[in-house]
Amino acid sequence: MARTQGSSSDITGPRIRRVAERLFAQAGYAAVSMRQIAAEVGVQAGALYNYTPDKQSLLFSLMERHLHEVLEGWDTLKSTGTPQEQLAAFVRFHIGFHLERPDAVFIAYMELRNLTPENFARVEGLRRRYETIPERILQAGIDAGEFAVPDPRVATLAVIAMLNGVNTWYRPGGRLTLEQVEDLYLDMVRKSLSAG
Amino acid sequence: MARTQGSSSDITGPRIRRVAERLFAQAGYAAVSMRQIAAEVGVQAGALYNYTPDKQSLLFSLMERHLHEVLEGWDTLKSTGTPQEQLAAFVRFHIGFHLERPDAVFIAYMELRNLTPENFARVEGLRRRYETIPERILQAGIDAGEFAVPDPRVATLAVIAMLNGVNTWYRPGGRLTLEQVEDLYLDMVRKSLSAG
Repeated sequence: MARTQGSSSDITGPRIRRVAERLFAQAGYAAVSMRQIAAEVGVQAGALYNYTPDKQSLLFSLMERHLHEVLEGWDTLKSTGTPQEQLAAFVRFHIGFHLERPDAVFIAYMELRNLTPENFARVEGLRRRYETIPERILQAGIDAGEFAVPDPRVATLAVIAMLNGVNTWYRPGGRLTLEQVEDLYLDMVRKSLSAG
Repeated sequence: MARTQGSSSDITGPRIRRVAERLFAQAGYAAVSMRQIAAEVGVQAGALYNYTPDKQSLLFSLMERHLHEVLEGWDTLKSTGTPQEQLAAFVRFHIGFHLERPDAVFIAYMELRNLTPENFARVEGLRRRYETIPERILQAGIDAGEFAVPDPRVATLAVIAMLNGVNTWYRPGGRLTLEQVEDLYLDMVRKSLSAG
């Protein structure tokens, strides 16, 4: 489905990113060439290098942007309230945000192996910043006597992994609505953090 | 690190599978050629085809074998007891089994996209068979009044996703022993399934 028309003036960042994200998610970073990305965008390979210095930079910028977006997305919510209320907001936000970006989520986990050590460290730093959001909510809940987990760091990773799992099976139009799925996961997350 | 010696008599299934699994996990199925696998094993590409008809069959056989092993591993335990006891056995089994096979687990999730529709259906059937293990434990616990989840199928997927997450962060020799990690996850899983 490569487009053969198009001039360099058509090269917009969003278009290149969209194509690269789809191809990386479909075939894997190592199997996709810059030439192939250019062909799908509909330009000469050379024109692609006006936008990005190399494939590694393109991969890194996709992952960095994804993590910036999730951090900004949460900030935009300006979530306040009790730890229970913030936990509910986080669970719904995380599920919704990630379901809308299956390719970016897939790449974010799967292509860590293909980042240079320096880029890996930067991506891990951003991911760690995101993880502090639920970790702080958990700690606030523990301090308030609402949650009881012996190891907030491990509990945070367990909660995030549970929520990430939604992407592997949920499809709109299936047996459950998104809100029902959010409710089911929130119920399990709440209980998993409770005094039991 | 390719080995150049070796004759066809050296080609054992386990060696080919070990090399293919490592290369697929490192670079992704689409980026690895049969020639490359043969070079790493230390034989001519032609010799590899005595073992497997093509790369697709090799990928499928790796995933199929992994799923057979996890099913047999659980069967070997011959777990009995109350739903709570069986849940504990399952959580410890799942974490331990998957931590020992990071490459196979990685491939089992990431390379589903590269299976032919027929092979995908067979792999999904085996995965579904594995999922019925915790699903039956959950249902038995619900029937016994020990667990309370409104949707056992979704709860099963949530529990498996939570446990799978251990592979993304746990390393032996770190802050926590494997037993401590199992205890922390079992505690959260138990509570997540409780009446709350």
